[in-house]
Formats: sequence, C-alpha cells, structure tokens
Amino acid sequence: MRENVVVQNIERAPREIVDGLAACGVATIHEAQGRRGLLADYMRPIQQDVSVAGSALTISGAAGDNWMMHVAIEQAKPGDILVFSPTSPSNHGYFGDLLATSAQVRGVVGLIIEGGVRDTRDLRKMNFPVWSKHVFSQGTIKETLGSVNVPLVCADQLINPGDVIVADDDGVVVVRREEAEAVLAASRKRLENEETKRVRLANGELGLDIYNMRPRLQEKGLMYV
Amino acid sequence: MRENVVVQNIERAPREIVDGLAACGVATIHEAQGRRGLLADYMRPIQQDVSVAGSALTISGAAGDNWMMHVAIEQAKPGDILVFSPTSPSNHGYFGDLLATSAQVRGVVGLIIEGGVRDTRDLRKMNFPVWSKHVFSQGTIKETLGSVNVPLVCADQLINPGDVIVADDDGVVVVRREEAEAVLAASRKRLENEETKRVRLANGELGLDIYNMRPRLQEKGLMYV
Amino acid sequence: MRENVVVQNIERAPREIVDGLAACGVATIHEAQGRRGLLADYMRPIQQDVSVAGSALTISGAAGDNWMMHVAIEQAKPGDILVFSPTSPSNHGYFGDLLATSAQVRGVVGLIIEGGVRDTRDLRKMNFPVWSKHVFSQGTIKETLGSVNVPLVCADQLINPGDVIVADDDGVVVVRREEAEAVLAASRKRLENEETKRVRLANGELGLDIYNMRPRLQEKGLMYV
Amino acid sequence: MRENVVVQNIERAPREIVDGLAACGVATIHEAQGRRGLLADYMRPIQQDVSVAGSALTISGAAGDNWMMHVAIEQAKPGDILVFSPTSPSNHGYFGDLLATSAQVRGVVGLIIEGGVRDTRDLRKMNFPVWSKHVFSQGTIKETLGSVNVPLVCADQLINPGDVIVADDDGVVVVRREEAEAVLAASRKRLENEETKRVRLANGELGLDIYNMRPRLQEKGLMYV
Amino acid sequence: MRENVVVQNIERAPREIVDGLAACGVATIHEAQGRRGLLADYMRPIQQDVSVAGSALTISGAAGDNWMMHVAIEQAKPGDILVFSPTSPSNHGYFGDLLATSAQVRGVVGLIIEGGVRDTRDLRKMNFPVWSKHVFSQGTIKETLGSVNVPLVCADQLINPGDVIVADDDGVVVVRREEAEAVLAASRKRLENEETKRVRLANGELGLDIYNMRPRLQEKGLMYV
Amino acid sequence: MRENVVVQNIERAPREIVDGLAACGVATIHEAQGRRGLLADYMRPIQQDVSVAGSALTISGAAGDNWMMHVAIEQAKPGDILVFSPTSPSNHGYFGDLLATSAQVRGVVGLIIEGGVRDTRDLRKMNFPVWSKHVFSQGTIKETLGSVNVPLVCADQLINPGDVIVADDDGVVVVRREEAEAVLAASRKRLENEETKRVRLANGELGLDIYNMRPRLQEKGLMYV
Repeated sequence: MRENVVVQNIERAPREIVDGLAACGVATIHEAQGRRGLLADYMRPIQQDVSVAGSALTISGAAGDNWMMHVAIEQAKPGDILVFSPTSPSNHGYFGDLLATSAQVRGVVGLIIEGGVRDTRDLRKMNFPVWSKHVFSQGTIKETLGSVNVPLVCADQLINPGDVIVADDDGVVVVRREEAEAVLAASRKRLENEETKRVRLANGELGLDIYNMRPRLQEKGLMYV
Repeated sequence: MRENVVVQNIERAPREIVDGLAACGVATIHEAQGRRGLLADYMRPIQQDVSVAGSALTISGAAGDNWMMHVAIEQAKPGDILVFSPTSPSNHGYFGDLLATSAQVRGVVGLIIEGGVRDTRDLRKMNFPVWSKHVFSQGTIKETLGSVNVPLVCADQLINPGDVIVADDDGVVVVRREEAEAVLAASRKRLENEETKRVRLANGELGLDIYNMRPRLQEKGLMYV
Repeated sequence: MRENVVVQNIERAPREIVDGLAACGVATIHEAQGRRGLLADYMRPIQQDVSVAGSALTISGAAGDNWMMHVAIEQAKPGDILVFSPTSPSNHGYFGDLLATSAQVRGVVGLIIEGGVRDTRDLRKMNFPVWSKHVFSQGTIKETLGSVNVPLVCADQLINPGDVIVADDDGVVVVRREEAEAVLAASRKRLENEETKRVRLANGELGLDIYNMRPRLQEKGLMYV
Repeated sequence: MRENVVVQNIERAPREIVDGLAACGVATIHEAQGRRGLLADYMRPIQQDVSVAGSALTISGAAGDNWMMHVAIEQAKPGDILVFSPTSPSNHGYFGDLLATSAQVRGVVGLIIEGGVRDTRDLRKMNFPVWSKHVFSQGTIKETLGSVNVPLVCADQLINPGDVIVADDDGVVVVRREEAEAVLAASRKRLENEETKRVRLANGELGLDIYNMRPRLQEKGLMYV
Repeated sequence: MRENVVVQNIERAPREIVDGLAACGVATIHEAQGRRGLLADYMRPIQQDVSVAGSALTISGAAGDNWMMHVAIEQAKPGDILVFSPTSPSNHGYFGDLLATSAQVRGVVGLIIEGGVRDTRDLRKMNFPVWSKHVFSQGTIKETLGSVNVPLVCADQLINPGDVIVADDDGVVVVRREEAEAVLAASRKRLENEETKRVRLANGELGLDIYNMRPRLQEKGLMYV
Repeated sequence: MRENVVVQNIERAPREIVDGLAACGVATIHEAQGRRGLLADYMRPIQQDVSVAGSALTISGAAGDNWMMHVAIEQAKPGDILVFSPTSPSNHGYFGDLLATSAQVRGVVGLIIEGGVRDTRDLRKMNFPVWSKHVFSQGTIKETLGSVNVPLVCADQLINPGDVIVADDDGVVVVRREEAEAVLAASRKRLENEETKRVRLANGELGLDIYNMRPRLQEKGLMYV
C-alpha cells in the first residue's frame, strides 16, 4: 500500500528514439507494437496538426485537486510529457497557462490529462500541446496528497513513468520504455512498407489485389450480383 | 436473408443534380424535403468549412472489421461517397490515408462512417473529407464478410445505394435518389426565399412582422410586461 | 405560476464593465467570483479564439420550438447576448443564419444555447459567435409559448435577465449583474497577480516555492524516494 | 415524399409463429437469423423477467409529440406491439397508463419506444411491458402529424409494419415478417443444439473440446506458460 | 456573493399538503403545474415502487466533499428530504448507511442527489429511498465549506429550501412551496379527470373520440390509405 | 511484447480471506485500503442484493471476440471470478448461459466484464452473478488470440491475476492479492468502528459532534443565519 510518494529518479528512453517515434505517428506505432497502447478515444487535442512525443512524467492526484502538478514539475526533465490521471472521474480544470509556463521552462513538451484543462487559447498561443478528456475552467484545490512517477491507469492504459507517449490528431499511444527502440524500428519498417503501397494504390491498383484478398473472399462465400 | 453480397450496378443521380445539392447545404435540404433524412448529430467532420455531395456507395461490415472497405472501393465510380456502418457499435479506425489514396484515385469524394477514422491530419492534407462518429486509431481485422451496395441504417437513417449524401459543417443528410431532382428544386426555391428574407432582416425588419406572428402570439396569450 | 411573459425592461450592467469582463476571460472570472457561475462543460464554441461578453437576454422555450427566439430579438439592445434554454433536453437546430442576421442588426453579440445550432459555417463567416450543446440541422416549430427575460436554468446555472455572460474557448460563465463591478475589480487584481507569477515562473522559480507548499506537503507526509 | 399517412391494412405473421418466437428469446433469435436485427443496447425494459413477441405497429412522430399514438391505437389488432420512433432524439414521456389502458383493451402486448415513458409503476402493475430509451415524465403536445404503419428506423434497426418484434431482459430484436417462419425453425434448432451442449458442459466437458478449438489455437500460436 | 451559510429557519409547506402531493405522483404533478419542475431524467431511484414527498433541505457542496451533509442533518425536521448538488459534476459516493441512519432518526424521508450514493443495499433494507445520478463507492473528503438551505440548481431545476420534492419510479419533480396548495388541488382534479377517462378507455372508447381529435387530424391532412 | 499467452499457475489469496472480504462489502473495502481499487461506475450488476468475492482469472480478448473465454474456463479453480476486458471498447454479448454453465461447474463464482453480457434472465436463475458495462445480445467471433491470466486494465483499474475482486450492489473493487489479508483486517476494524457510530447516530447524536467538526467549521468561516 505504497502511496503519496515522489519517485525522483526514473529511467527515460534515449531522446533520439523518442523523437523518432514522434515522427511515426500514433496509428503507425499502435500497429507496429501489435495494436496495443491506445488511450481511450475521448482524449482529444486542444490544437490541430501537432504531433509530440515525450517521456511520461506520471501524476496521480485526487479528483479536483491539482497539488501534485506543482510537485511534479520540479521532477521534470527536458523532453518529458506530463501524464495526469485523477483517482476518480473529474472534469475540473487542473492545468492552465501558469502551470504551462512553469512546465515549458523545464522543457516539458506537453500534457496528457484524463480530466479538464483551461486557458486553452493561451496554451495554443504558447505552443504547449494538450490532449484532455475535458475543457473546463472549474478550479481545483490543494488538499490531498497523491504520487508522482508511479505506474497509473490513464484513459484505459497502464502508464509507467518513463514510458514513451506519442500524441497527434488521432489521439495518444503509450510505448513501454524498454520496447521503445524495437517499436521505433518496427514503425519505420511499417512506414516504408506503407509508402510502397501508397504508390501502388495511387497508381490505381486495388487493395483487393495488392493484399491478394480475392481467393479468401470467394472461399468465404462473397457473392457479386 | 440475403447477406454477403456485392451489388455491382446501382443507379446514381445525375452529377449535375448531386453538385447542385452540394451547393444548397445540409440545413436547407433537410427543410426542403420535409425535415427528413438527417443523420444523428454525433456524425462530425474532421475538417472545417467543407461541403460535399456524392452518391452513396454503402458498406455494411462487422464491428472492428474493414475488409469490405477494400471490396467497396473496386465498385466506386467518380462522385461516389463511401457510407460505412458496422453491424454493431464500434469506434475502431476503419479508414486511413492508404484507403483514402485508393478511393481518391477512383474519384470518391468523401467518407461517412458510423465508426472511427484515423490518419486525420493526412486526410485533411489530401482534401479527403470525412464525417465520423469517432476518431480512433484502433486497428481492424479482415475476417468476416459483409455487403456492399445494400440498404443499411447509418446514424439513425436508412440509406440506399445511390441515394445522394450531402455533408457540411452542420452534419450529414440523405436524399433519396428518386427524389433528388425535386429536392434540389425545392432547396433552390427555399434559398431564394431565404435570400429575400435575409435582406429584409438585415434592413431591420423583425421576424415577428415578416412572418406575421403577432396575432397568433396574442391569441395564445403571450403577455408583455 | 407566472408563465408566457415577455419582460420588456430589464436592467443591464454598464457597457464598460461588460467589456472589461470580456477581456478577463472565463477562467479568471470564475476564480475571481469564488468559483461560481460556470456553465456545464458540454457548452462548446463553434468558433476558435473568440471571447465575448454581453448582457443576458434570456429565452425559455419548449423543446423543438424556436418561436420565442423571434419574440426575443425585438427586445434586444446593443451588447446583449441571447441565452436560450429549452424546457426539456433537445438537440434541434433552433438558430441559424437568418436569426443571426436579425440579431446582429440589433447589436446582439452572440448566442448561448443549451440545444442545437445550424448554419455554423455562415455564422462563423458573419462573426456571430455561438456556444451550444449541439450542432444539428433539425428544424423547429412555432406552436408553444415560452417566456423572454425571466430567470432560467441553462447548463447547470441559474441565469437572470441582465446578468453578464462571458464566453471564450474555455466555455461560458455567468456573473450576477449586481456583482459585475466587484467581479471585474477582483478579476483585474487576479490578472495582475497572475502576471507577476508568470514572470517568476518563466524565470524558473517553482510553484512549490512561490506558493510555499513544501512545509505543508512534508507535514501531510509526502515522501520523496 | 409520402408522409403523414396511416396504413390501415398490413400483413402480420401468424400468431403461432409469433408466439413461438417469444419462447426462443432475443439472443437465440438474433443468432438464428445471422446476427441481424438487434435494436441498440440503450433500449431497456422497465420490468424484469418478461418476454413478449408481437407484430410491429409502427408509429413515426415528431419529437415531443404523441398525437400519432392515439391514431395508432385505432389500428391495433390483438397481438400487436407498438413501435414508436421520434423523427429526432427526444426523452419526452410519450406514453403512460391511460394510453396503455386503451392499447391493452385492443390486445396490444407491449411498447418499444426510442423515447421516454412514464407511469412506469402503473404499467408494471398492469402487466403492460415496455422497452424504452428513457423514463421521463415530460409531457408531450399534439400538433404535428406523423405516420402509422410505415417503415421506420428505431434504435439502429429498420422496422417494417408487421415485422415480428421479440423483447426480453436482454433487449429487443426484429424479425422480418416474411422470414419469421424460417427464423423460428432455425431458432428452435439452435435451442435443441444448445440444450445438448448445456448437458455436456454441465457434465464438465470443456468448450475447448466440444468445439474442437485446440488445434486452431495452437496453429495461431497461443502459448501456455 | 453570500456563501458558506447555513440558513436555520426556513418555511415549509404544511404536512398534509406534502403528503397529498406524494399520493399524486410525479407525472400528474408535472402536468398539473404546467409541465414545469422535472429534474433531469438521469436522476434514478435505487429502489422500485416507492413514492415520497418532502420539504427540500438543500445542500450545496464542493465536488467530492460531503462535509455539508453532516451540517445539514442538524437542520433537518421530520418530513424533510435532503437535496444535494455539488458545485461541479462528480460521481463520488457522498452518502451511505451511516448518514442515512442519522437522517432517519431526525425524520428525513429521503435523498435527492446529483452525485453518487453508496451502501445501496443497506439503504433499501432501511427503507431510506434515494434518487441519484450515480451509484459509486468513491469516498469523499471534508475540506471545503458549502451552504445549507440556499437556492441551488439540481439536475436542471432551481430548488429553493422548503420547496416540495416529489419522487417516484418516474423521477423527481419540484413544486414551489408557495404554489404547493394550488398544485395539489390541480393534481387532484387531474387525477379525477384521468379516472373518468381511464374508465372510458377501458370500455373500448378511443382517445381519438374522447378528445375529439378526428376533425383536426383531417384538417391538417392526415391520410388513411 | 509478450502476447497471446495463457499463464497456467497463478497464486491466489487463501479462501477464508476472500470469503472474509465478501462479507465486508465494496464501500468498506475501498475505504479500508485507502480509497483505491474501485472499478468505474458503469460496471453494474444484472441482479440485486448479491455480494461475491473471488480470485481474478483475467482474460484479455479482442473487441467482439470471446474465444479466450473458452480458454480461460479450463484454467479456472473453485472460487475464481472471471474478469474480462476487451482491447478496445465493445458492447458485444461475450458471455451467456452456456459459458456460465461451464464456468459454474468449475466453481467460478461470477463474472466482471467491461463489455456486454446476454441471457441475463437465465444467469439470474442460475445464481451466476455478473457485473457488466452492457447488456446486449450481439454475437461474438472466435478469430483473434488474446491472453489469460496476464495483468490488464478493466474499467479504470489495473487487475493482476489472483487479485481479489469484491462486487456487490455498489459496484466492484479490486484488492491486491498480497495486500488482501491486511485489507481484510482493516475492513473488519472499520466495520466495528462503523457499528459503534451507527449506534450513536441511531440514538440521535450528530456526526457534527461525534467527529468533532464544529471547531473547524467555525474556523473556516461557516456562518449560521
């Protein structure tokens, strides 16, 4: 029953691997790692056409309480992405432009929050990207302890501190830190493969032929009428 | 119990009628055809300020299975719009940039999907418009047959292959193919009528007077205090 | 049981106070007035990066009936913002570009509606901002009386005619007319205070230190490991 | 654009077939007809442990308007089940104990409504079963025409007048009238088959063996550790 | 900006009027007072076949904080019903069997809560009825002040302390204290009127004839085919 | 990237501890272990007034695919409770009376499923309790491998194989296997403590006095008027 702890030293994936994953995109990474790791589809960006990747700095706090946000920022290293999950569902606005200012100074590249965010216009102006479940201004209190850099569940996924988070317009995916290099390799291979297919499809070939689907469709009994 | 069929030859409305409807907009068409045909309000565009119209190429598939998408694209004609409905609710990402590339080559003008879509940033870049219930990257399988160009229910509406689909920022409306010409005429008439009213309203006249509402309000007992 | 009335003369807050509040933003005002007055988080803007404030012209109508919208517009004064709440939940499109044209002529600065809106692209072009629960084209009827400028509940909040409504990308907040001046003063003070903190945070100071949180965290038992 | 009609003579399935289907249950029928016909899972019973089947007497009405309910009851024959769908989403209470009294006199066996119902305690006392999307007392008006005994979409399914509706604790399924006999036969066969399996399972045999799943699991690569 | 107050002396409606309303039921009262006062349809009972009425003892508290519950119980008089609304949405379990024991000792007849409740099985055993938005065990804190016996918004309705609350299987309705006597009279008249109609309907007369609907249906153009 | 595995030997908590927890109830256990472990509030029982506890036999499967259910039952030991979570959201009916028959033979005491269940009336008759997110008959396929007895996320909580699951009318809570004994002790202590308080409350003492709340309320500024 270990609770109310701040883990100060966590391992992170190498920066070049994190950056490599950012360039691959959520859908590709999700496929490349065996269709695992997608956060729930209610995690939506407050901005458009932005992709980021970072090392998860995890924050577990009580519903409606953002005290641990302040504790967490002190632990941040450049390239981190904040991942906040309340211990029960809540739409409060846990994070706004002041916290973003402080986080950005320390090199934090974004926020993933299964809760609410506010000052969204300012956050977009600051180029501080956020994926959240809610946009809501409701204020928070600072009364109950929580934990920083412990494993937590956020939007259907287990996230360990130091796991790699990738987020873009399609949503958010988590990659285990120790699998990050392999997933990057698999993602790049997949991208190359997709590029080849894109050219063939753009030339008018059909997926039915490229993937050789016709025999199996016939065998299963598809009827053309 | 006719299932697992691909209907290869369907009738479509003439292109000029479809294009005419695109210019009228969803709200106007919905009114012009007697307030029928609106798809549920959870069908939202992934882009802004885009209107399209096309002939429905309908696709019925199992939840989490996009096999029939590939089958459908072979049946596409220029000006078609893909309409996908899973046989039970699902937020999987059935469609992404590769399928869009293939569809666009064949002249498909967009996608209406009561499910999920992914690669949304790429789709916007490609100018391939989508109205969907979800944005989600979750991968799909290719195991269960479905049907192409059969009548289906999508987001509360019955859609027949070849019906005209019109979609814009307000949502999606279906027009029966055999009514399309009449609906276009009624829509244009309505637009003219609205233009006249807009001028009067812009000049400061009130709807209360233009529509002669005062006597009936008084009769029903509205009190001004 | 006073119903079906139109209150013609309501008090409004001075224009400079309303405009002052517009500049403060929803999150700041919500905090400055003791964390009260936020409308539910499902009230979303149809446009981005727009802030408005206005005096509430309240409209209570039956579900699916927009008759009272026309009645209300006659009562509008420059600087008013329409606040519509149906007497039971409904997603109909109560408001579109024609009503907006009429409202804009009278100086109405926006619409807050716990229901649906349509012609959203046109409304954006007209610079007529809307915060709504739904975007939907479904037409409305004009059969049942309602009331204008009576107190009503909209999206979880009681709103009196003449109260000040402020809306931006974060949502919507209501300020009691008689408290508007005090809330504006408190909001401005808060903004100044925030500006000071922003500078300190931007210089790398931590919230933990600025707000002197460390002793209380320690006392409550937070452990660093 | 045929609207506002009451179709007086519709074909119904033979009573013994309808009754036979009632005894099979929703899950079995759904499977027996190829996994089609299930209404959305938000259609919930107001009572427990009741199964019914009846011929669909379909009713299409405006949101918040129950006028067509009265029109429909005149068309009812013993063994009919009312199926009401509003033309846009609504939670109004379209139906209560008075309408149920009138319907029951005519032999109506229940109500399926993609909307609200009220007087639920009385309805249970009367043994008048209902499956609805909402329970809500909100009153309705009688202003707008609709149609009776036309095809409509209710809770994701197309329902034709005279189709067989079966409802139990699991939900609601529609069977095409012309397929009812075949579906009954298939359902009974399925029930027999299930009974055999139940005995084997109750004796401790595993589904893995009864369905011979082990080879395919192995082939696909399932690992026991 | 009057906050954090406990109003100790409130007016209540006479007990015989409150009891009279309990016997009328939610749907009837809602109609009798002009279709006003219904709480949102997500307020569901944790028990079946129970009707209560009581004088509203209103409680406004922070999300996830049930401190004011304890403060409120001291203010309770026999015949009161607790009405709790958090200042922002929350599903925490604010109330369980201990609070119910304390409330029941003071004559409280039930709880209406736009939040969560726990120990539901015990509450049913104690015959302490509850209508809530959620059933959830999540614990609450006692850190933030709120108010008791102030006007508040609960589930879409404004509720004043001392207003009469009536709740049954259909949901919850509020009656203004000063209108309670008139609403009771109107409800009883309506019940008598309904009883007459029920007899006629039970004898086979149609609503179409009892309410003389046929001429207006014909005039509006309903076609029988 | 360890996937598609069946872990055959897992540790379970002693039966007397599991049974002891069943008697404590969800709300008490949740509190006793520091307000952790509650599954999301959408996990609702299909029966009333039933409490169970069991050792989690975890099952991870693809959306709409119940193949792993059959694999899992072979691994069941008396006192186990099945915990199923699909890898993406789905309302399919993964489980019905046949699987329950097989599970019950092996001593399985219930099912927790973040998905759908069917044959609910039969399951109640069999006294096989279920807590599910959905009730829906939609059939499933057996095409994609998953895993049995691996850690998984179900309804917001991480669940390890062998963890203790307790479920009653309030919902579902998970207790870590290695903490089960301590949590049982803490729960029993809490129950005793509650019993003492219940007696005092039943005798008319107030929570305000029992918990000595008055000084702190005064200090925070609560005003009685």
